[in-house]
Amino acid sequence: MGSLGSNNKDDIVSSETVGKVITCKAAVAYAAGQPLVVEEIRVDPPQKMEVRIRVLFTSICHTDLSAWKGESEAQQAFPRIFGHEASGVVESVGEGVTDLEIGDHVVPIFNGECEKCVYCKSKKTTNLCEKFRVNPMKSTMANDGKCRFSTKEGNPIFHFLNTSTFTQYTVLDSACVVKIDREASLKNITLLSCGVSTGLGAVWNTADLEEGSTVVVFGLGAVGLAVVEGARVRGASKIIGVDINSDKRIKGQAIGITDFINPKDLDKPVHQKIREMTDGGVDYSFECAGNLDVLREAFLSAHDGWGLTVLLGVHPSPRLLPLHPMELFDGRRIVASVFGDFKGKSQLPHFANQCTKGVVKLDEFITHEMPFSKINDAMQLLLDGKSLRCLLHL
Amino acid sequence: MGSLGSNNKDDIVSSETVGKVITCKAAVAYAAGQPLVVEEIRVDPPQKMEVRIRVLFTSICHTDLSAWKGESEAQQAFPRIFGHEASGVVESVGEGVTDLEIGDHVVPIFNGECEKCVYCKSKKTTNLCEKFRVNPMKSTMANDGKCRFSTKEGNPIFHFLNTSTFTQYTVLDSACVVKIDREASLKNITLLSCGVSTGLGAVWNTADLEEGSTVVVFGLGAVGLAVVEGARVRGASKIIGVDINSDKRIKGQAIGITDFINPKDLDKPVHQKIREMTDGGVDYSFECAGNLDVLREAFLSAHDGWGLTVLLGVHPSPRLLPLHPMELFDGRRIVASVFGDFKGKSQLPHFANQCTKGVVKLDEFITHEMPFSKINDAMQLLLDGKSLRCLLHL
Repeated sequence: MGSLGSNNKDDIVSSETVGKVITCKAAVAYAAGQPLVVEEIRVDPPQKMEVRIRVLFTSICHTDLSAWKGESEAQQAFPRIFGHEASGVVESVGEGVTDLEIGDHVVPIFNGECEKCVYCKSKKTTNLCEKFRVNPMKSTMANDGKCRFSTKEGNPIFHFLNTSTFTQYTVLDSACVVKIDREASLKNITLLSCGVSTGLGAVWNTADLEEGSTVVVFGLGAVGLAVVEGARVRGASKIIGVDINSDKRIKGQAIGITDFINPKDLDKPVHQKIREMTDGGVDYSFECAGNLDVLREAFLSAHDGWGLTVLLGVHPSPRLLPLHPMELFDGRRIVASVFGDFKGKSQLPHFANQCTKGVVKLDEFITHEMPFSKINDAMQLLLDGKSLRCLLHL
Repeated sequence: MGSLGSNNKDDIVSSETVGKVITCKAAVAYAAGQPLVVEEIRVDPPQKMEVRIRVLFTSICHTDLSAWKGESEAQQAFPRIFGHEASGVVESVGEGVTDLEIGDHVVPIFNGECEKCVYCKSKKTTNLCEKFRVNPMKSTMANDGKCRFSTKEGNPIFHFLNTSTFTQYTVLDSACVVKIDREASLKNITLLSCGVSTGLGAVWNTADLEEGSTVVVFGLGAVGLAVVEGARVRGASKIIGVDINSDKRIKGQAIGITDFINPKDLDKPVHQKIREMTDGGVDYSFECAGNLDVLREAFLSAHDGWGLTVLLGVHPSPRLLPLHPMELFDGRRIVASVFGDFKGKSQLPHFANQCTKGVVKLDEFITHEMPFSKINDAMQLLLDGKSLRCLLHL
């Protein structure tokens, strides 16, 4: 798809807007489950350590849908601008921002990295920043607890997940903006904002999967397929995809699954089948379905002694972990992975370069493209399970 | 205490017994919860890949008590010889045993290492041997499913936990017998059979604790105190001991706790207190109480982002893990540790040497010594929480 970058930054952003309120189009959610309204809004200039970016592409993730439907734990703040997968160009930076400048190609990240807090600086492996970690309860900017978006009438519009990308311009904390090499395809790197990074990172960082490992992935949506891609790149010897929708087999095979199971076709628990296929269980199982019964199958699919289950799915059910403590003594382990354990600002640029070089292939993940004005249609495609990622052009 | 070893192996074992049935004293359990009967039994010679050892010292662990009381998941097989912490000398070896010979100083291990199976040979870190891992349901020898013990009348007496050490002579699979350097104190290395290895190993192997780490230990019995000793040796900066028995403070301090908490003295959950004491939580928490509410406190006491909770306690309750899957996304991890993740035959000899050199101090763990004939008194001491380890002289 090539780069959308240009040596002339004025092609994409204009210095005339710096320091001023920008009027632009955004898709505003006024109530849970109601169609988004694409309308003109006002976007304030970035404050201290903030960045205003022109969004060029955005896509939709299930987390947007859950929050929009009011299902998730996200604070019910309306009107609101959803969206957290995007790519764009820096339009202007606030006081104190030194690592980004006008014209930089960037992706927003919902799980920020301030590079200063005890978490970001810890020698321990964590990508949970003290101030800018993923926080579904947050709906305003950290600086002043206020919104940078407002309606034409001057009413505040709330932020979402540190990002808010269903808009031509957005304001983020600089901790949540990652500069990407201009060689990278802006279309493709949109995917690095969330789903693809979450899946690949879970393999590369959380599991740190070794060549020759056996893998099972429960749930072949965008995140699950990103796990497949991550496992393929690392040289897994067997990648079993599990989904109750047999249509997922084709896409799974295109990316790299070696086997496919639809649990509905089995007369035994899926973990039994997987143990039979893998001499006692896989080295790594990934739960990308957000279902507790699936979680238990994923856990039991892992080899005793060393098998690791990585949770990626969001579990809205109040039910507790369906595991008995003594089951942990069989040596199976379970961990969760946020944003693939990537430290966004430190590690995504390298990841983007690997995509540019073709080490990681992202083309299969963009199944649809549409103009921004059709965002409600794009949401419906994802709701219907017909798209992986629909790229919206702003 | 010095070595009980001697260059003249005939001091301790006699070649006259090789290949013959030995009649000796053992403490036999005839029914759950009934006092053990110290009486003469018959011990068959070792079969293929088995070893017969003369037990010189044995001690009692809570796992013995649970099985004896019939509380645990252990098969209710009576009459039975309990006991799994001991030290002794090889009396004879069966066909095929090449790594042990008559006169060797040894400790039995309930979690064996055959050194040949897919688990023992795996590059992954596991100490769960395919055939000789801890198995409370097992009550006979692997070779033929029969017992090597019998009453004077010729009735079989069942084995326990791959070991059965409440007897002057016992027969074990060679995978469950570890040769220890003769310089080591036979009294002290008795402790390496179970509790001390479990606790120290959980720190050294499972957690692989770094110098300067902060630690909390829930339950200051022998295993919990061994965790304390392991953390002290590794240079932990803070070791908080938690127990509902304030008498444990003294012993804990003698070994290495820097702080003590009795949750009964608090007006807040213990994890809140621990977070206050440690800038947000400890690096490592160890659950040695076998209680699910304690487990949850241990989990919440760990620092978000990287804190690791290690389970050592046995949880007989049918209740599931009191954790919600989304809580794992805060970066706290939980794993269980069997026998401190020590591969017994490969790693205990080095551990024993570290005890001999004084790197690890075991003297505090032996609080009582008695002749073998008083084994029921020794069990009562442990039941009453008055002893850590009572060493029985056979």
